[in-house]
Amino acid sequence: MGKNRLEAFSDGVIAIIITIMVLELKVPHGETLNDLASLIPVFLSYVLSFVYVGIYWNNHHHMLHTCKKVTGAILWANLHLLFWLSLFPFATGWMGENHFASAPSAIYGIVLLMAAIAYFTLQQLIIASQGPDSLLKKAIGGDWKGKISPVLYLTAIPIAFWSQWISQGLYVFVALIWLVPDRRIENILAGKKE
Amino acid sequence: MGKNRLEAFSDGVIAIIITIMVLELKVPHGETLNDLASLIPVFLSYVLSFVYVGIYWNNHHHMLHTCKKVTGAILWANLHLLFWLSLFPFATGWMGENHFASAPSAIYGIVLLMAAIAYFTLQQLIIASQGPDSLLKKAIGGDWKGKISPVLYLTAIPIAFWSQWISQGLYVFVALIWLVPDRRIENILAGKKE
Amino acid sequence: MGKNRLEAFSDGVIAIIITIMVLELKVPHGETLNDLASLIPVFLSYVLSFVYVGIYWNNHHHMLHTCKKVTGAILWANLHLLFWLSLFPFATGWMGENHFASAPSAIYGIVLLMAAIAYFTLQQLIIASQGPDSLLKKAIGGDWKGKISPVLYLTAIPIAFWSQWISQGLYVFVALIWLVPDRRIENILAGKKE
Amino acid sequence: MGKNRLEAFSDGVIAIIITIMVLELKVPHGETLNDLASLIPVFLSYVLSFVYVGIYWNNHHHMLHTCKKVTGAILWANLHLLFWLSLFPFATGWMGENHFASAPSAIYGIVLLMAAIAYFTLQQLIIASQGPDSLLKKAIGGDWKGKISPVLYLTAIPIAFWSQWISQGLYVFVALIWLVPDRRIENILAGKKE
Repeated sequence: MGKNRLEAFSDGVIAIIITIMVLELKVPHGETLNDLASLIPVFLSYVLSFVYVGIYWNNHHHMLHTCKKVTGAILWANLHLLFWLSLFPFATGWMGENHFASAPSAIYGIVLLMAAIAYFTLQQLIIASQGPDSLLKKAIGGDWKGKISPVLYLTAIPIAFWSQWISQGLYVFVALIWLVPDRRIENILAGKKE
Repeated sequence: MGKNRLEAFSDGVIAIIITIMVLELKVPHGETLNDLASLIPVFLSYVLSFVYVGIYWNNHHHMLHTCKKVTGAILWANLHLLFWLSLFPFATGWMGENHFASAPSAIYGIVLLMAAIAYFTLQQLIIASQGPDSLLKKAIGGDWKGKISPVLYLTAIPIAFWSQWISQGLYVFVALIWLVPDRRIENILAGKKE
Repeated sequence: MGKNRLEAFSDGVIAIIITIMVLELKVPHGETLNDLASLIPVFLSYVLSFVYVGIYWNNHHHMLHTCKKVTGAILWANLHLLFWLSLFPFATGWMGENHFASAPSAIYGIVLLMAAIAYFTLQQLIIASQGPDSLLKKAIGGDWKGKISPVLYLTAIPIAFWSQWISQGLYVFVALIWLVPDRRIENILAGKKE
Repeated sequence: MGKNRLEAFSDGVIAIIITIMVLELKVPHGETLNDLASLIPVFLSYVLSFVYVGIYWNNHHHMLHTCKKVTGAILWANLHLLFWLSLFPFATGWMGENHFASAPSAIYGIVLLMAAIAYFTLQQLIIASQGPDSLLKKAIGGDWKGKISPVLYLTAIPIAFWSQWISQGLYVFVALIWLVPDRRIENILAGKKE
């Protein structure tokens, strides 16, 4: 199997995931602006998850760009990643509807963590398939973002039962790490990590 | 990342948006033609949004056709546009179910406005990436349609609280501006704007 | 715009339409086989619509295969066809839930009719764009199927208010005309029509 | 019609099927971890179906990879397969919501069986279209997996009314057969079957 089919299928699944998340934003029964107010947490959780799925889509394709041949293990590691991404709409909806309550915030973190682990596994399999001169290995370098993210998720999950706002802050922070291409922060953190 | 992946992903998301909008047209419980009557406003708002998404899809691809390389900024500006387009099903459903009431009509205008701003941002980033001889810059010319649309949305939003029908008329008018390839109107308006 | 993008977008929309139709087949609350019994009409209407959308997808691509350049008119005629196809899930769901009652059966016929007209319009625009030696014009020949289908839909719509089963029989018959590649029937009917 | 369009359309439909299955995992009303407990069977049935659809997608593309020309019969056999796959979300949801009760478990087996038969039919049509030197015929060899799967489904369906857990075990076992690339098991079973 060429990587084109893998990319096309992953694109399809990610496009559907990012779009059906909006179905959790249910049309309110009333017709006033006040009726929208109760949807604000659902909207905010949608924005956060939209950004996360956007980051995954972006990184996924940079990663596959370096991949030449698709093995059976890579194929299933990719489906494993798509599985955890497919739980984003559920986790997002539950968190939003319950105004970022403790348990939904923790479950959201678990889904983020599992997706990060699935992404890491896929990455390692592609690097292994590329042999000692792996292009992907060079491209990711120390991969401090990939290493610090699961640590922050793991921290945020238990904290959610004490203060869900710190957890949410950590989730937003991780998203920003991936989003903001700030060389200075990157270098500092990279220096600490590498 | 080549622009092919960006186009394919955008196509997927837009195809899903245009299709899940129809899910707001819920199957009525009764089995007579009268039971359909209450769905007429939902149907009309669906038609309007279908045309808008169709226009965006059309313009999006003419624009990307001129684009040679995709930068990180272009990628995220594109996701930003898809984000606002993804709110069309919600805004359309709320407006239709409430028979074009004031607040839903205003919110619909805000979503249209934000999508127009996101589209404009994406356009400017592509022009900037193309340098002084930008093909896209030449193709859009004075871009009177792109400039007048947000002005009309901005006008329609507060008017919705006074008369929602004038707002709806403005939304339909903007859609027609983009839809009708009438050179005469185009030249007159272009003459006024440029 | 090349026809590839048009095909890919149409494929996406048709794939979503054919799949979300199944969402009307709602999971019953009970857990016995009897609880499935009430879903039989919904299931049958799903099968019929699945076949119709399959036929449209099949014909759509044979048609576009002959098309070399995509004009603005062809683009919008294609979106017009997708619009009516997008109403299949609604019409199918309403008809199935009401056990093929008169009004839903008639509305189903109207959606079939409008889709057939939209398809015919698209076909004529592609033929016109190809000039006197149109490949598509030769391929469709007398187009007896394209001509007899709207006549049968038009017949079935008013009949639905007298006997919905005759209407349903006509809808099934039209689907079979397109499905069965029986040269004999084709020649006989073609002889009568051309 | 080239096989590319067939692959792209099938990819789209399968991507949507695998993603809308997650919609059956409905957001619970409560906000505690206990509220998630009742979702565990729905989650487990989702995992099982995700794996099955993943296997079908994987095999489908290996199969089409060997296929050079697409006949009308292949096209409809493919749509027939997609039809049965499109019933996975329904069968999965019903089975999960009823905690793997007898009737839903049997119906799930019937959908698995019909999809397997549809897959087999498609496979035979492609082999027939390739003539005596069929590449696909060589690739599948004795096809012991394809032959044993429907037998196990047929066994599991009536057993579901006696013990649904044996049925579930059989469904999981068939999935593992396809998933695990264990040469030893393969050779043993192949030796018995061929």
